[in-house]
Amino acid sequence: MALAPSTVEGPLNGTLVVDLTRVLAGPYCTMVLADLGARVIKVEVPGRGDDARQIGPWLNNRSAYFMSLNRGKESIALDLKSQIDRGTFERLLEEADVLIENYRPGTMERLGYSWERLHDTYPRLVYAAVSGFGQTGPYSPRPAYDMVVQGMGGIVSLTGHPESPPTRVGTSVGDITAGLFASIGICAALKEREQTGAGRMVDVGMLDCQVAILENAIARYVATGDVPSPLGARHPTITPFDSFATADGHIIIAAGNDGLFQRLCEAIGRTDLLEDDKFISNPERTTHVADLKIELESTLHGQETQHWLSILEAAGVPCGPINNVAEVVRDPHVLARNMIVEVEDTDGFRVAGNPIKFSGLSDPRQRGAVPDLDSGRGDILRELGLET
Amino acid sequence: MALAPSTVEGPLNGTLVVDLTRVLAGPYCTMVLADLGARVIKVEVPGRGDDARQIGPWLNNRSAYFMSLNRGKESIALDLKSQIDRGTFERLLEEADVLIENYRPGTMERLGYSWERLHDTYPRLVYAAVSGFGQTGPYSPRPAYDMVVQGMGGIVSLTGHPESPPTRVGTSVGDITAGLFASIGICAALKEREQTGAGRMVDVGMLDCQVAILENAIARYVATGDVPSPLGARHPTITPFDSFATADGHIIIAAGNDGLFQRLCEAIGRTDLLEDDKFISNPERTTHVADLKIELESTLHGQETQHWLSILEAAGVPCGPINNVAEVVRDPHVLARNMIVEVEDTDGFRVAGNPIKFSGLSDPRQRGAVPDLDSGRGDILRELGLET
Repeated sequence: MALAPSTVEGPLNGTLVVDLTRVLAGPYCTMVLADLGARVIKVEVPGRGDDARQIGPWLNNRSAYFMSLNRGKESIALDLKSQIDRGTFERLLEEADVLIENYRPGTMERLGYSWERLHDTYPRLVYAAVSGFGQTGPYSPRPAYDMVVQGMGGIVSLTGHPESPPTRVGTSVGDITAGLFASIGICAALKEREQTGAGRMVDVGMLDCQVAILENAIARYVATGDVPSPLGARHPTITPFDSFATADGHIIIAAGNDGLFQRLCEAIGRTDLLEDDKFISNPERTTHVADLKIELESTLHGQETQHWLSILEAAGVPCGPINNVAEVVRDPHVLARNMIVEVEDTDGFRVAGNPIKFSGLSDPRQRGAVPDLDSGRGDILRELGLET
Repeated sequence: MALAPSTVEGPLNGTLVVDLTRVLAGPYCTMVLADLGARVIKVEVPGRGDDARQIGPWLNNRSAYFMSLNRGKESIALDLKSQIDRGTFERLLEEADVLIENYRPGTMERLGYSWERLHDTYPRLVYAAVSGFGQTGPYSPRPAYDMVVQGMGGIVSLTGHPESPPTRVGTSVGDITAGLFASIGICAALKEREQTGAGRMVDVGMLDCQVAILENAIARYVATGDVPSPLGARHPTITPFDSFATADGHIIIAAGNDGLFQRLCEAIGRTDLLEDDKFISNPERTTHVADLKIELESTLHGQETQHWLSILEAAGVPCGPINNVAEVVRDPHVLARNMIVEVEDTDGFRVAGNPIKFSGLSDPRQRGAVPDLDSGRGDILRELGLET
């Protein structure tokens, strides 16, 4: 007997995800899967549930942090050390397409749910394990913390200003990128399973994902031996490509070639800079990057950001504001793309929408409710044929 | 006649990706797909090819930047405005499972390859369009620049120190997260196609993806009305959870609850802090976060980072170093996880490996060669039955 599919349209509609994850990396992954149409059943610890339920800020006595990651999921509380609850859990696994957890490595084995046993018993199950350091390697047993993997993985060494103390990326990219790579691995394994009938284990470590997003920093170091360092907001080799102070804040200008630099100088009335040998080509401009910033800011400082945005957009020079979160959530384009969605049964609480837009599928302006702990029990047990 | 599969094992082995993308977001996506076993054929502009081929640093006269993103792909140069080359391109589409491009919206329509026409002609084709602002909405026609979407999407407003000028995330998360969400959409659409036989269009905008990774910043703003701002390296509500100066650099310490704070104080010989009312609980510690940092650094400053890491690891207090890129690429755990891989035919050039580890599949220590422009032409035309 198969459980009912999610009411959300999407390429994963009909897929059942049994979700043991807590806090951020795993729940972010299963939120992505739910937005793609999967039905996600959170299996939580009785009494306390997902640790994120205890993290503020609070809205009507519920954790807004938890709500932002768990909309559109269902909850059942099961104690995986109790024989009855293990029976329920195993009935769920019989129906599941995906099992995901973000315990410390070794926990599932201690619970009797090693990959070998899972794969033997449920050969079609795709099993994803998200952890700080992955299932192998010397640091594998260590707990996962976003800030620790950001520091160990190199991104902190690239972020900030040259003389500033260490600077963390302002969102938890350690957790979030792990959630994204896990989503990719799960979807790819589901695709393969349609052909082979067999599931796979997907092992994603947060530190590995930090290394994977270092981008050209590794290439720069390996090719040249130079260790990349923080550069504030500017690009290492393209100039001007930075943030600049205006009368009321900052503007980002990305004038990446000689033609755009000329348009920039003309638009802001600084054609004198085009005559200056120091700024004659991109390599020269990069060599004299500090001088050029002083020259540009001496002019940009005279008017407000919005004035310069209008002028530069009209001139075809790539530019943009630096929006704070209040500005982002009311930006007309962000709203037109349905990237701020309401959550059912919350009096209008809003969260980020789904950035993957598909042809032929609706992109609902309202996303499913946030489950209270164990609130799905009745329906889930009934569907499993386990109600008493 | 189907083209041969990739020689790389993986859940996407047997999948053919025709790749029109340039520079970073799109090529990052197709690198992920290639690492999962897809065969990726880059279709490049004759003469010049992918713009990334012109971006330094250089290694043996080849762009290390390009190499780091295009290992394991093939290249054919086609002019999509020439009738003969369009014929070749359309033969490729007949065999393709996925077509991906990161042009500005409207370009594919002008070339005669709108989604409607593609879907009519190649109903099984999954088509992904990655752009700065997506295929719809008021900013849709604008060009894509990582720094611009980082600024507009809010992450810059959260990154940096309270008084510092704007701070970009040190890697191009604007491009990379778009590449990751596109990979998820493609894999999910391929999974669905196994069941329905029909492809879908996947529309991913970089700005949307920035909104999607703002994480709790949106929840904090919507729930409280407070606009989140940069906090350096520290956590907004958990203390101590920050970087701290040592005798030779910094250490990250994440002592997220009272028990860990006690272990921290005992391990570094500062049990006096446990008696101080200012530091008695997490809310108190967060209120007095600056005082606590001064107290902890007055001790931590006396010894080197490695000394404190040993002591805190032994005490079970989550902590870590701040590694630069040179330290990351030689870290024993990073190496044990095969996260630094060699590229064939490059005299040992190294790049980031694949962070998605699957059971039952090899994770090669060497990844496929980087294609010179048009170097795959002979083999590809032969396989298509088009050689003259």
